[in-house]
Amino acid sequence: MTLVLVLHGPNLNLLGQREPGFYGNLTLEEINQKVTALGRELKIEVRCNQSNHEGSLVDALHEGQAWANGVILNAGAYTHTSIALRDAIAAIDIPVVEVHLSNVYAREEFRQTSMISGVCKGQVIGFGWRSYTLALRGLAEILAEQGH
Amino acid sequence: MTLVLVLHGPNLNLLGQREPGFYGNLTLEEINQKVTALGRELKIEVRCNQSNHEGSLVDALHEGQAWANGVILNAGAYTHTSIALRDAIAAIDIPVVEVHLSNVYAREEFRQTSMISGVCKGQVIGFGWRSYTLALRGLAEILAEQGH
Amino acid sequence: MTLVLVLHGPNLNLLGQREPGFYGNLTLEEINQKVTALGRELKIEVRCNQSNHEGSLVDALHEGQAWANGVILNAGAYTHTSIALRDAIAAIDIPVVEVHLSNVYAREEFRQTSMISGVCKGQVIGFGWRSYTLALRGLAEILAEQGH
Amino acid sequence: MTLVLVLHGPNLNLLGQREPGFYGNLTLEEINQKVTALGRELKIEVRCNQSNHEGSLVDALHEGQAWANGVILNAGAYTHTSIALRDAIAAIDIPVVEVHLSNVYAREEFRQTSMISGVCKGQVIGFGWRSYTLALRGLAEILAEQGH
Amino acid sequence: MTLVLVLHGPNLNLLGQREPGFYGNLTLEEINQKVTALGRELKIEVRCNQSNHEGSLVDALHEGQAWANGVILNAGAYTHTSIALRDAIAAIDIPVVEVHLSNVYAREEFRQTSMISGVCKGQVIGFGWRSYTLALRGLAEILAEQGH
Amino acid sequence: MTLVLVLHGPNLNLLGQREPGFYGNLTLEEINQKVTALGRELKIEVRCNQSNHEGSLVDALHEGQAWANGVILNAGAYTHTSIALRDAIAAIDIPVVEVHLSNVYAREEFRQTSMISGVCKGQVIGFGWRSYTLALRGLAEILAEQGH
Amino acid sequence: MTLVLVLHGPNLNLLGQREPGFYGNLTLEEINQKVTALGRELKIEVRCNQSNHEGSLVDALHEGQAWANGVILNAGAYTHTSIALRDAIAAIDIPVVEVHLSNVYAREEFRQTSMISGVCKGQVIGFGWRSYTLALRGLAEILAEQGH
Amino acid sequence: MTLVLVLHGPNLNLLGQREPGFYGNLTLEEINQKVTALGRELKIEVRCNQSNHEGSLVDALHEGQAWANGVILNAGAYTHTSIALRDAIAAIDIPVVEVHLSNVYAREEFRQTSMISGVCKGQVIGFGWRSYTLALRGLAEILAEQGH
Amino acid sequence: MTLVLVLHGPNLNLLGQREPGFYGNLTLEEINQKVTALGRELKIEVRCNQSNHEGSLVDALHEGQAWANGVILNAGAYTHTSIALRDAIAAIDIPVVEVHLSNVYAREEFRQTSMISGVCKGQVIGFGWRSYTLALRGLAEILAEQGH
Amino acid sequence: MTLVLVLHGPNLNLLGQREPGFYGNLTLEEINQKVTALGRELKIEVRCNQSNHEGSLVDALHEGQAWANGVILNAGAYTHTSIALRDAIAAIDIPVVEVHLSNVYAREEFRQTSMISGVCKGQVIGFGWRSYTLALRGLAEILAEQGH
Amino acid sequence: MTLVLVLHGPNLNLLGQREPGFYGNLTLEEINQKVTALGRELKIEVRCNQSNHEGSLVDALHEGQAWANGVILNAGAYTHTSIALRDAIAAIDIPVVEVHLSNVYAREEFRQTSMISGVCKGQVIGFGWRSYTLALRGLAEILAEQGH
Amino acid sequence: MTLVLVLHGPNLNLLGQREPGFYGNLTLEEINQKVTALGRELKIEVRCNQSNHEGSLVDALHEGQAWANGVILNAGAYTHTSIALRDAIAAIDIPVVEVHLSNVYAREEFRQTSMISGVCKGQVIGFGWRSYTLALRGLAEILAEQGH
Repeated sequence: MTLVLVLHGPNLNLLGQREPGFYGNLTLEEINQKVTALGRELKIEVRCNQSNHEGSLVDALHEGQAWANGVILNAGAYTHTSIALRDAIAAIDIPVVEVHLSNVYAREEFRQTSMISGVCKGQVIGFGWRSYTLALRGLAEILAEQGH
Repeated sequence: MTLVLVLHGPNLNLLGQREPGFYGNLTLEEINQKVTALGRELKIEVRCNQSNHEGSLVDALHEGQAWANGVILNAGAYTHTSIALRDAIAAIDIPVVEVHLSNVYAREEFRQTSMISGVCKGQVIGFGWRSYTLALRGLAEILAEQGH
Repeated sequence: MTLVLVLHGPNLNLLGQREPGFYGNLTLEEINQKVTALGRELKIEVRCNQSNHEGSLVDALHEGQAWANGVILNAGAYTHTSIALRDAIAAIDIPVVEVHLSNVYAREEFRQTSMISGVCKGQVIGFGWRSYTLALRGLAEILAEQGH
Repeated sequence: MTLVLVLHGPNLNLLGQREPGFYGNLTLEEINQKVTALGRELKIEVRCNQSNHEGSLVDALHEGQAWANGVILNAGAYTHTSIALRDAIAAIDIPVVEVHLSNVYAREEFRQTSMISGVCKGQVIGFGWRSYTLALRGLAEILAEQGH
Repeated sequence: MTLVLVLHGPNLNLLGQREPGFYGNLTLEEINQKVTALGRELKIEVRCNQSNHEGSLVDALHEGQAWANGVILNAGAYTHTSIALRDAIAAIDIPVVEVHLSNVYAREEFRQTSMISGVCKGQVIGFGWRSYTLALRGLAEILAEQGH
Repeated sequence: MTLVLVLHGPNLNLLGQREPGFYGNLTLEEINQKVTALGRELKIEVRCNQSNHEGSLVDALHEGQAWANGVILNAGAYTHTSIALRDAIAAIDIPVVEVHLSNVYAREEFRQTSMISGVCKGQVIGFGWRSYTLALRGLAEILAEQGH
Repeated sequence: MTLVLVLHGPNLNLLGQREPGFYGNLTLEEINQKVTALGRELKIEVRCNQSNHEGSLVDALHEGQAWANGVILNAGAYTHTSIALRDAIAAIDIPVVEVHLSNVYAREEFRQTSMISGVCKGQVIGFGWRSYTLALRGLAEILAEQGH
Repeated sequence: MTLVLVLHGPNLNLLGQREPGFYGNLTLEEINQKVTALGRELKIEVRCNQSNHEGSLVDALHEGQAWANGVILNAGAYTHTSIALRDAIAAIDIPVVEVHLSNVYAREEFRQTSMISGVCKGQVIGFGWRSYTLALRGLAEILAEQGH
Repeated sequence: MTLVLVLHGPNLNLLGQREPGFYGNLTLEEINQKVTALGRELKIEVRCNQSNHEGSLVDALHEGQAWANGVILNAGAYTHTSIALRDAIAAIDIPVVEVHLSNVYAREEFRQTSMISGVCKGQVIGFGWRSYTLALRGLAEILAEQGH
Repeated sequence: MTLVLVLHGPNLNLLGQREPGFYGNLTLEEINQKVTALGRELKIEVRCNQSNHEGSLVDALHEGQAWANGVILNAGAYTHTSIALRDAIAAIDIPVVEVHLSNVYAREEFRQTSMISGVCKGQVIGFGWRSYTLALRGLAEILAEQGH
Repeated sequence: MTLVLVLHGPNLNLLGQREPGFYGNLTLEEINQKVTALGRELKIEVRCNQSNHEGSLVDALHEGQAWANGVILNAGAYTHTSIALRDAIAAIDIPVVEVHLSNVYAREEFRQTSMISGVCKGQVIGFGWRSYTLALRGLAEILAEQGH
Repeated sequence: MTLVLVLHGPNLNLLGQREPGFYGNLTLEEINQKVTALGRELKIEVRCNQSNHEGSLVDALHEGQAWANGVILNAGAYTHTSIALRDAIAAIDIPVVEVHLSNVYAREEFRQTSMISGVCKGQVIGFGWRSYTLALRGLAEILAEQGH
């Protein structure tokens, strides 16, 4: 069976509470349920993980390589500064799709630089929780082409 | 019925021939067929248009406002320089989703600035021709929520 | 009789509808009527033109040189990026006055660079539709001094 | 009766003598007479003031708020550096119109940044002494709309 | 007895009227009373001064050196541009504490550079009028350590 | 009773040993005692925490929201680079006051950019250990105004 | 027979009239005659085209690919800003030689950045109308080596 | 006996697998064995440690100060961004030598800025695993000079 | 008789007291005596003036034009920021020589930009009080050549 | 007879061996023969010179002024950094044409700045050894127009 | 036998005298002896050379290619500016190791850019004269692997 | 007897011929005579030297240290780029005074950065050949104070 890691970065555990104008009203748990449900429909097992620690996100990518066929990553604030995450994505040999809930290009200047986009497979940005489900559909098709 | 304009910018008429490492092997006609077919499945009429002229793309957005419920826009090279397109997107009151075939963040520096992202609803980038179909799915859900 | 070309750039055809907080409630047609009416009062025939195409604006400046004594130009978004317009203004030997409806200096950073100001005769900025009528008064006095 | 403060910044007391290629041949006194005369025609009392001191210009704006309905300001060299003037303009609740004699955009790079444009109502630039009279006409219309 | 100069820069004379969202509702006189009252409690005589003139602020620092044991300075807009004030602070041998009413870091980019912070003893920023009283408490402890 | 979290960032556990010219001779434990003692005087319970991990500081802010009425944060080196901390401060709905022991503006250039100042309530910088006690006084007054 | 497209960009239709200090006294027609005559001598059929429209230049390059063996391109002002032209040159599989009449490096700063040089075969700059004939000679030799 | 901490940063646990063109074919374990073996030859006990967590690397440096005479540090991606690591190196009073496996200067621009080089004793860069053994030789001589 | 204005800018009234490592031990009065004495020797009447006010320095230059044959100007901190002083120097038709006591190029970065050097006749920098006397010698020769 | 100096800069003595992908397979001697042969055909005596020393290239330009009618200069790496060469070209009164073998605009960023282009007559770039022969043809025509 | 060129750049002939805080107390002759002695131990003949001339260093690299198996290069000040040296290193096909006596990263900003690091094999920096001996050890191992 | 080296950099051998608007009409020989004559008057033996080679200027400074008491240096174009000259000036223990004939601050931007000013004793700029004689007077006084 196809396995996908959905990895959430810093402050995303506060979803539903934090600045709903940018991030919407769903909690992280509710987003996880939506993406897991779509996974079931697409015959993909989705496992979700969240951490506020840059190092833990790096660890999770390393470990994901052992069991997952692909990754959906919302690196949150680390998107804009973490070379360690970039190196981790480049080092593992499974496709990583970058997602963002809000349209980061309509926000502060410092949110418009990404350290990780260049090594990801693609990006889905600005669709709220649907960024995750669209990303899963896209990743599913990529994995299907690769024979998963 | 829901109506969507798919608008392609400069040089996309050469698809299938131009740098397939970046842009894939499908022709523009084949991409249009794929996105139109998905539209039928989603009960959306898709109309496609291409121009190498910045002004014609602005015109098409203005006219699209009269008949379309939403736009999928691959502004190609004008993405990075056109304030006129930005102003056109901001001026019309229907949602515009930005797409790119290739992962622009893995390419030249000048392709990593976007004049239009800040006024688009969201972006789907780097999935090849699937960027269009994912964008259509996302746009369809946004329009459905708005009652279309 | 003195002849003046009033040339409007991209997206100005949407005036009255587009972001009225910046651009006011008058349509382009209504602005044209106001500036034409002032022209009659000042014994100046005013001819108005609009295009979303950078090349068409360049063409219009070239042609204007054959029949007009001066130009009032609102280059819209092309103000900030078009070296072609700059070269066209520098190449023709009639005075060009730059106008903007909104105070571009109170808006985004990218609206605060102008490629054309250095080769225009002067600027009138931020007075809404009155930017055009003030510009016509100023241009009229310049042309009167030159013997028109 | 409507009252307008015309405020001139540093080195403008030398007009008529200083670089006539940029600034024209009229003295400051002659410019004041022209703008005062137009004021009479428009039923506006114009009071003129000049200082080479940034602080005195700030003081004059503060005091102007007590008696004037609007301000025409040529901040000269302080245009490009003075946050204090910007704050003064933002702090008073009467409209301020920025003027320049010469086309500052055709001169040195450091004259192309303005600290004050963003908080002024509008700009009239490059018409020589007529910049002041055009500005007075524009200000008069704005004030008339406000009921003055 | 310990003597402290409280020195206010440009536009602070308008407090209570000017943009209360940033600066609060108290007038400068009321702030002076609050900081003077706290001074009495701490056995410190506080003398207050305000000017819109950069040169007058420099003069006041020079003169303060003759009679004051320390300075609380809100340099307002000159904070961001004045090397003359920086040199004055560095030249006198009494401690200067920098204060700001508003959180300058939450405002325009140009308010986030300070020419004077590097030569001040410390900063208290963003507490409204309490920035002054906190600064006085801090300065009092520094002066007490020095034997005043 | 009012509760305040005092949160110390990376390398502050070495205080008393590390570069005393910048940071003073007190250990972190001694600073905690001073601020706790002042808390008792002001009827505020102070709880102190330190970590060298960016993620742990984010966690502590999230958890603090559940029990504390306000936060005093010395983010140390993370001040200058951490968007994750910025987002955490913005996400929680209790006031955060930023402190620094040394005058960061008198040090290296890279210490003069702050990612967090814009979302903090205010800053107290450069007073050594007294930065913490002044911050507690300021925070106490803010909380008192809010009814704590 | 070998076929070469000579493509002129914006404002070059004004040659002979426009700033002869930079561009010389020949009209575009006269330059076309000179380069066509040299073509005859070299057994090359030269076809000339001019447009002020960026999109038309892109179109002409696309169409040129169908019939021409090489291109001589003076992109004028679009040289410095057009990514669309760059992409068109990269997309077609015939050699493009860039020419400029004037020495752009002795002019304004904004004329010293080229978006297209990196994808052209070579450049001939600053020889006036002879830039075109030298370019034709160079292109002829390149095409001869390729067997044309 | 002389004791040396060899500290490896993020993603170095993947050595042998990750981009061998840059990092070589040895695993981290094999590198540790080589440097430990050289240590034995030089009468130095080498203890190795790796973490993907910036905070854990800071902790390890703090703890190393208690038992080690010197440190060999490959901070990996944190080299380019971590002020916290810089402060930790500056805070401890034992020499730290910086190493990199690959020649970072032949790679991406963002790998060419180092936050830590200025506070390290020296650098050995680009020799693959030999960077570590050369660094140990250099550190051994420095420590020998200090009497270890 | 030849007349020279020696004009000193902000904080120079503190000479002798302020940072003698940079500025030497002489007071401003003593420097004035030295330069006046040399003037007598060279048959030049020297009149000295100092102000901390940018506007007063501008005023002094304007007035100097009426009576002086040349100016020696140490603009102090205003050197680096004052466009008003630059304009005043450019506006008057007598030569101005710029002096600095300390070698500004061996100090902070912000002291290495000059707004006035481009419009001065020349500079003498870094010779302490002798900068003034060397400047007077140089100015005397220039004036002698002009027939003074 | 017309005399032309062909001057080659640093590392060009290695041609034929050095990075043939950029520089082609011909040796410097072979290029010199080709350009000399064309010279004979055009009745021009060509004298060739090469040096790795910036100063020797400056010397050669100075000396060339005494005997040559024009110069073809490939300054190699000094193109991008040498103000001394720029000054030498500007100082001599014979035309200098700049050539490059490779298309420098398709290479590293630092090769895209030229210190000498602004003072050369023109450039021929990217045609391999033909850059020299095209340059000689162009220079011959310029010299012929001047009567040589 | 293996042959290594040790090449010293500008001002290194003054070693022992020049700023010993940065460069140590050994003369260049003494460093040469140390590295030659180590060479004998490693069965490598070391030949040393120094020049203050950029061109001579380029020449020496070219000539070294004929007889040496590798190079140790301390390019001194030319490290930061010389593209000619970079090109020479890239053009020759023997490995070059870059060394610096002092930790250039703890010094002025302009010493932190290197034009040559990207084309060298590796760097040894900050170990004083030991930078050379460590570099020789590293180079010896690289050459041994290549079969020398 | 006091000995002074006057060292001229690149292109200064062409004085009298080269751009007299900037550099005046005197030849280098005539300037040398003027400065030597003043030297005799001041009991200083002046020895003059010129080279177009950066390395030779470095050599001359090194050698000058053996016999001269001070140096007057016009480094010409190398002023703006040569770190090697900067290091040479810093390495020798005799004072160096920087001179320029023209006011470099009134010329191109690239002439307004100096690599050497920070390590020179002072600068005399813009007085034509008198820059040298003023510099000699200043240097003489500095040397006299040192007991020469």
